Amino acid sequence: MPEVYKELYDVRNKLEQHYHDMLDIEFTIQEKKLFMLQCRVGKRTGAAALNMAIDMLDEKLIDEKTCAMRLKPAQLDELLHPIIDPSDEANNKAIAKGLPAGPGGAIGQIVFSSEDAVAWEKKGKNVILLREETNPEDVEGMRAAKGILTAKGGMTSHAALVARGWGKCCIVGASMLKIDLAAKKLHMGQKVYKEGDFLTLNGTKGLVYEGQLNMLDATENPNFKQFMSIVDQFRTMGVRTNAETPQDAKAALAMGAEGIGLFRTEHMFYGKNSETPLFLLRKMILSSSEDERRIALDELAPYVKKDLKETMEIMNGLPVTIRLLDPPLHEFVPHSKEKQEEVAKALGIDIAELERRSEALMESNPMMGHRGFRLGVTFPEITEMQVKAILDAAAEMIKEGKDPKPEIMVPVTCDVKELKVAKAICKKVYAQVLQTYGLEKIDHMFGTMIEIPRAALLANEMAETAEFFSFGTNDLTQMTYGFSRDDSDVFMGPYLDFEILDNDPFQTIDEKGVGQLISYGVERGKQTRENLKIGICGEHGGDPKSVEFCFKQGLNYVSCSPFRIPIARLAAAQAELKTQKA
Amino acid sequence: MPEVYKELYDVRNKLEQHYHDMLDIEFTIQEKKLFMLQCRVGKRTGAAALNMAIDMLDEKLIDEKTCAMRLKPAQLDELLHPIIDPSDEANNKAIAKGLPAGPGGAIGQIVFSSEDAVAWEKKGKNVILLREETNPEDVEGMRAAKGILTAKGGMTSHAALVARGWGKCCIVGASMLKIDLAAKKLHMGQKVYKEGDFLTLNGTKGLVYEGQLNMLDATENPNFKQFMSIVDQFRTMGVRTNAETPQDAKAALAMGAEGIGLFRTEHMFYGKNSETPLFLLRKMILSSSEDERRIALDELAPYVKKDLKETMEIMNGLPVTIRLLDPPLHEFVPHSKEKQEEVAKALGIDIAELERRSEALMESNPMMGHRGFRLGVTFPEITEMQVKAILDAAAEMIKEGKDPKPEIMVPVTCDVKELKVAKAICKKVYAQVLQTYGLEKIDHMFGTMIEIPRAALLANEMAETAEFFSFGTNDLTQMTYGFSRDDSDVFMGPYLDFEILDNDPFQTIDEKGVGQLISYGVERGKQTRENLKIGICGEHGGDPKSVEFCFKQGLNYVSCSPFRIPIARLAAAQAELKTQKA
Repeated sequence: MPEVYKELYDVRNKLEQHYHDMLDIEFTIQEKKLFMLQCRVGKRTGAAALNMAIDMLDEKLIDEKTCAMRLKPAQLDELLHPIIDPSDEANNKAIAKGLPAGPGGAIGQIVFSSEDAVAWEKKGKNVILLREETNPEDVEGMRAAKGILTAKGGMTSHAALVARGWGKCCIVGASMLKIDLAAKKLHMGQKVYKEGDFLTLNGTKGLVYEGQLNMLDATENPNFKQFMSIVDQFRTMGVRTNAETPQDAKAALAMGAEGIGLFRTEHMFYGKNSETPLFLLRKMILSSSEDERRIALDELAPYVKKDLKETMEIMNGLPVTIRLLDPPLHEFVPHSKEKQEEVAKALGIDIAELERRSEALMESNPMMGHRGFRLGVTFPEITEMQVKAILDAAAEMIKEGKDPKPEIMVPVTCDVKELKVAKAICKKVYAQVLQTYGLEKIDHMFGTMIEIPRAALLANEMAETAEFFSFGTNDLTQMTYGFSRDDSDVFMGPYLDFEILDNDPFQTIDEKGVGQLISYGVERGKQTRENLKIGICGEHGGDPKSVEFCFKQGLNYVSCSPFRIPIARLAAAQAELKTQKA
Repeated sequence: MPEVYKELYDVRNKLEQHYHDMLDIEFTIQEKKLFMLQCRVGKRTGAAALNMAIDMLDEKLIDEKTCAMRLKPAQLDELLHPIIDPSDEANNKAIAKGLPAGPGGAIGQIVFSSEDAVAWEKKGKNVILLREETNPEDVEGMRAAKGILTAKGGMTSHAALVARGWGKCCIVGASMLKIDLAAKKLHMGQKVYKEGDFLTLNGTKGLVYEGQLNMLDATENPNFKQFMSIVDQFRTMGVRTNAETPQDAKAALAMGAEGIGLFRTEHMFYGKNSETPLFLLRKMILSSSEDERRIALDELAPYVKKDLKETMEIMNGLPVTIRLLDPPLHEFVPHSKEKQEEVAKALGIDIAELERRSEALMESNPMMGHRGFRLGVTFPEITEMQVKAILDAAAEMIKEGKDPKPEIMVPVTCDVKELKVAKAICKKVYAQVLQTYGLEKIDHMFGTMIEIPRAALLANEMAETAEFFSFGTNDLTQMTYGFSRDDSDVFMGPYLDFEILDNDPFQTIDEKGVGQLISYGVERGKQTRENLKIGICGEHGGDPKSVEFCFKQGLNYVSCSPFRIPIARLAAAQAELKTQKA
């Protein structure tokens, strides 16, 4: 039917020229007559959407604004996974092929059980979890693995569903794999791979390679770079990152962060290199008098300053919002006999007394307990030490010709009088630091989290003292709903299933309820202080719908984890473009 | 100086006639000339204020409105303690005298240590705690005792301060007491009293009597009765009680309660006669399937119905607001080996499995966890059983010619969709109960607590389904401040000392913050449902300042503990009178 074919071909071209997009068309031919049934914008993966958008822009089919609207922020998420360097991949031959169940590339050492995946990952190893197929008991191992490879299962198998949900690299149904679980060996034709051997997976194509291929960071993809620079032209709202290590700060800068919106000072007491600071913190919190506390604080101070300075230096010239101590102290008490003895000895008390003091820090509902600036009211010397460390670090940087921009943020506040107490401490310390370093001034800001409903309701008062607000939407959501994030899993499932809630409010800002408080916070805060700077930190800062909401509220910036920065940048730009249209 | 005396006498009369009140005047006489320096309304105790108000009313010096304004609600508190029958007191001779450190009268058996006071009280005995003087370690014993008697100490001694704070009968500094702690004997002159002997204290006068004198309930005082009936003429806002036992309900009626504003259904699982219901509740919460839960619920249902009916019968003709199960389930799990075994056996599981199930109910922040109607969403069969018990009890009463007015109240809600789920259960059960009892209707209401900030913010939606609101200001305060009531003691002291807070917000409603949410709740709720009935339950319902705030917000009633009802009645009337004046 050459005539009908030509007709279809013309219609197709006409439609694509008309819609300037890749289309999904339906047609039928009846008695040699062509009927067009339906035409809609075609679905596409993130990678395809990016390439099409840039191609169409290059072909001048679409303009830059349209280009910027062509990817959904969620699709960017797919794109942000590392991929195998295409040139390296061209030089290697795949040893197996399965279904492309989870995007991106992954390199790791093979393990044959979820327990091993978890154990190896804890030792700092990258692993590929190899299974016949997965079931719910494998979830922890799947989480720990860089990539998942199964011999059985289709695109809706357990492994595929879970991996896609997480955006984790995964290949399923690679039926040529013969797995010998008992011997922990993988047979592939004549070849045998044993536990610990390296494999490289291309989850986007479903290909498995032997050894370790070169990986490419998604941000190095030229199409991605071009797209993000177009996006940024339309963006007015700032995007910062949540980070408290030099590594995270560097990663965030590479992702386009314009500063740090949340530096959690307690982070230094967790994870690597935390032993000495944690010991000193424990000594401090288990002290029984201000004098004892001050001794421990004096020992701790240099570590705090060093920790802050390292990251502030990476962010040289950009604002760094530093949150004063936030968690309840009981989180830090030692539990092992050895650590208890160490602290007891340092304090010159016996274990029984140490346990008594630890016990006294226990709370029924720590989330609403003695935490945040409540600690600053009862133990002002802690706040004093922290503020001094911040300003000392900044003063040293100035002396070294650098440009620090610290922003001191007071957490868990409910009344302006708390801020007045905090500001008085800052002022006193500031004067001391200026004198010590012989400086005329250190640029810095003083502000607060808005994370307690009362603070949002009384934002007009809070802004009398605070120069900036940062909405802590995690806690604000907890208090507004009365949902403990640690405990709500039990009922969150049923609440979503029965459609009592449309979304998990810890994922996407609840505009109807929590949103009201944010909107009161913005409106009332600006009543008192016209140029009040307002941001948001916490999980919601990287959620596209929430970012759009923040833009509509007139926030100055959102702050999110490094990995989600491009998503926030795109969501912010699109929010702006949507408003222009409307 | 008879002339000056006469002049002073005349001035004094003139002033009292002018001010119509008892005055405190200051004067000086210099070179035989009288100078009046100052004149102000004199301070008085609650008892004196009551007698003066009624006397001046009888003498037509003041009108009823003025009379009703003459006592502060806090003074009424003093008056509400039981007193020794004056005629009986006149016939007895005091055996000792000390300082009147805490008001009212008390009868009890003497004990010589705080531990004994606690132990005897647990056995249901009334005790008088006898000490040389008290210190903070005696507090539990002081709390357990009906009255406190010390040999040493003045009006600002530990015993006096604590007792006055509680409004507890207390006599200090009765130096004629010789206490022999080791022998547990009290020597008074020649007489010896031993542990368990009865004494009667008049804390208002500081007098100690041997044996048991007749006591008089304050509400039997004719001046008090007359005063309260005057007060009620000016009151428009209702006053209900929080009660869940026939005894409390009766006491509340005697105090003037106009219904029950909060019947906590979980109360039957605490205290006396709770053994069987608690066992069945435990069986239910530790069940692993709906079927198992239903079996336990079916066994529990008759106890619940009986418990409800007993109190509803006392309140015949008056509204009884019954709150569905509120606390997190972990509160009820058994801890003793014996009780654990009992429940495990009933469920046919071993102790290890029972412990695993108990453990699974543990929460990090139970106050914001799986509680209130969240339990109704996950376990609708619990709500079903409770609603059925309420309506069954009402149906039986109707059959017996009585007039039940149950109001079903759903706790811990944050979204109208929760109320829709609850209402659907109620409707279904209602139809069943009507059929079972062959009734055409059972008058009842369906409503919700407003205790989560989001519920207040979205009150317009909540009122689509709820026919009444009751502000649960305890929880609302917790969430609005992010203060856990169980943990806030540690910082509440410093917050009050440093004047960060003017009042403890758990004592007096925080009008600035929590008050905003209440006011949104009222305003928005009435937008949707004009005739929405609104009350408040929780501690604040008996606090005079909070009652005044509730009146200003247009609430229909406040609900408080039986003992505080007269205070709430007076506060409500005075709020009304103040508005008339303004």
